[in-house]
Amino acid sequence: MNEYTHILVAVDLTEESRVLAKKACALQKAYEAKLSCVHVIEPLSLTYGVDVPMDLSTVQEQIQETAKIQLREFAMELEIVTTDQHLIFGRPETEIDSLANQIAADLIVVGSHGRHGIALLFRSTVNGVLHGAPCDVLAVRVGI
Amino acid sequence: MNEYTHILVAVDLTEESRVLAKKACALQKAYEAKLSCVHVIEPLSLTYGVDVPMDLSTVQEQIQETAKIQLREFAMELEIVTTDQHLIFGRPETEIDSLANQIAADLIVVGSHGRHGIALLFRSTVNGVLHGAPCDVLAVRVGI
Repeated sequence: MNEYTHILVAVDLTEESRVLAKKACALQKAYEAKLSCVHVIEPLSLTYGVDVPMDLSTVQEQIQETAKIQLREFAMELEIVTTDQHLIFGRPETEIDSLANQIAADLIVVGSHGRHGIALLFRSTVNGVLHGAPCDVLAVRVGI
Repeated sequence: MNEYTHILVAVDLTEESRVLAKKACALQKAYEAKLSCVHVIEPLSLTYGVDVPMDLSTVQEQIQETAKIQLREFAMELEIVTTDQHLIFGRPETEIDSLANQIAADLIVVGSHGRHGIALLFRSTVNGVLHGAPCDVLAVRVGI
């Protein structure tokens, strides 16, 4: 049980996901592992609270549609079949760990920013994933 | 630059370091990478404050001697030569990142506990390493 058999790549679908894709691809080859990918959309109501004075459903639908297309493109690059592509609504750190558990992944690959701003947000995701993870976590440094 | 060439394994020298050793060994083989290891001893004066009403130097020396022997044993198992074995005094998270930078490691492998108690301490080390790391970090789940 020293090698990885099922790697879950968690992507935020920014340009920096390419770095993750390359690292995941190398790992997959090295371990001859199965590869799955996940993108978690945080519902706007969760991000901004439930009291936003406008209907966000259209915006939310657009976000979802765009994410669906981008995740498909990302997955194609890594030759990940549709059933192993996961688009989930919720809190990233909780959902990633939960999915890893569900699909019995033994390694989660996530990005870790070295910059400020959104980095702080993402860092908290990495932390969350790390602490709740049922398996090993590889934090790939992106956007330095 | 998608593969790892120099892996730094940070060990706490507990029984659980064996899990880390096995994972690091597999990674080394997969990437044909160079392997270095480090153990950081937190000075007792740092851990307990400078106002401890007794001389801790003898205890500190014993800790250092024991750590030196254990680190050598750990390194032998992984066929790591003496010059790539590092025993450092300081705060683990700072020293590990600093060493990784110094030896140009492109992957740090650390343990991440799933239990309470000392786990919380060690988790903060993982966090510290993660946030200051000049490279990717693999958090290996140990002691579940």
